[in-house]
Amino acid sequence: MLIARVIGDVVATQKHASHEGRKALLVQPLNLDGSDRGDAVVALDSADAGIGDRVLLVTEGFSAMTSVGRPESPIDMAVIGVIDRIDLLPSSPPHLR
Amino acid sequence: MLIARVIGDVVATQKHASHEGRKALLVQPLNLDGSDRGDAVVALDSADAGIGDRVLLVTEGFSAMTSVGRPESPIDMAVIGVIDRIDLLPSSPPHLR
Amino acid sequence: MLIARVIGDVVATQKHASHEGRKALLVQPLNLDGSDRGDAVVALDSADAGIGDRVLLVTEGFSAMTSVGRPESPIDMAVIGVIDRIDLLPSSPPHLR
Amino acid sequence: MLIARVIGDVVATQKHASHEGRKALLVQPLNLDGSDRGDAVVALDSADAGIGDRVLLVTEGFSAMTSVGRPESPIDMAVIGVIDRIDLLPSSPPHLR
Amino acid sequence: MLIARVIGDVVATQKHASHEGRKALLVQPLNLDGSDRGDAVVALDSADAGIGDRVLLVTEGFSAMTSVGRPESPIDMAVIGVIDRIDLLPSSPPHLR
Repeated sequence: MLIARVIGDVVATQKHASHEGRKALLVQPLNLDGSDRGDAVVALDSADAGIGDRVLLVTEGFSAMTSVGRPESPIDMAVIGVIDRIDLLPSSPPHLR
Repeated sequence: MLIARVIGDVVATQKHASHEGRKALLVQPLNLDGSDRGDAVVALDSADAGIGDRVLLVTEGFSAMTSVGRPESPIDMAVIGVIDRIDLLPSSPPHLR
Repeated sequence: MLIARVIGDVVATQKHASHEGRKALLVQPLNLDGSDRGDAVVALDSADAGIGDRVLLVTEGFSAMTSVGRPESPIDMAVIGVIDRIDLLPSSPPHLR
Repeated sequence: MLIARVIGDVVATQKHASHEGRKALLVQPLNLDGSDRGDAVVALDSADAGIGDRVLLVTEGFSAMTSVGRPESPIDMAVIGVIDRIDLLPSSPPHLR
Repeated sequence: MLIARVIGDVVATQKHASHEGRKALLVQPLNLDGSDRGDAVVALDSADAGIGDRVLLVTEGFSAMTSVGRPESPIDMAVIGVIDRIDLLPSSPPHLR
């Protein structure tokens, strides 16, 4: 999973019924220092995430499908949780990294 | 999913029956600012997309297969919707991104 | 799918029975302008492709497996069609890309 | 699989029940020389790994799901083992690499 | 599949029973000219490959799992064959590439 930020949403003429009633979020994957990690992608929301939330992004198809409980949906990325806290352990000595 | 633009199509001597009757579209993935995101790829159309349309592109195999309702098809990318609107929320403060 | 060119083949001491009787092709993924897209990869042939052919390359495992009708084969890439023609629509205005 | 180092953990408001009771680890993929390989990712722990451990990281969805014995979980990366030793054979002549 | 060279092995405290009795090989993906293609990865051996062997590397999860006959194993890469010969056809004119 990647850490990402919700930055918008996408309205599309969906042809596949499985996407109806689901928000398609525009999310920006992030590096640990908060900088952009590549460009934004579109993910289905399964965590009631809102604009500005820092979220967990699943980037693989079968995993993403199960997140919404619809294993026959054409979903390859999904937001599966809103991040409360990241603990980057300072106690780990630099040479261990 | 990625945002992409339909820029052409591909005619191939298909050996796999599952592709018959489906358009193989040439699509160019895009960054948020509209610039090219890598080079073009070939995706099966499941959204009646046309040349010039801005579309949602699924880039994972199992997801792409389900989009056309044929889980035993050799499809790894599919166009699953035509984008009507992208809302990039300006209300999210820069430091949140 | 990617556009690729068949540039050779690979003879291996196969340990998995599912690969027997199948050609393992060396294929070079291509950009739209015909330049190399990364380095060559090895794909199973399911389209009777020959050296020099421009082909459609499926790059995902489950999709590749279904292309040869053997869902329990260790195949992650397959050549699924020989390209006859690519129509890159000139009618699409530059600003649309 | 990639070699990675556990550098922290992530606490999220999980919406999917399958993640409950599992640690979401922040892991940094590594090159052979110990330098960073891209940026850190988030993986579910199925090896009782701790901060500072050098681990084996599975980066594909279906594989990751099976590592935790929950094939319907939205997991795309998992820590599946703690590395004891890497033998980089010096006996292999340079020209063989 | 990628062409790779076996350069070592990895000993890990495996938590998943499916990996027991299998060698975890350290393999270096290669470009056609023999140079390194990114950094080394860890793959399960299903071809009795040895140090220095040039091998076929499957890099997708479901494919890798089937290579060892264990579809519920957390394996995302596997060595599935030892390469005997690569025929890079010189008869293909440069302009065809």
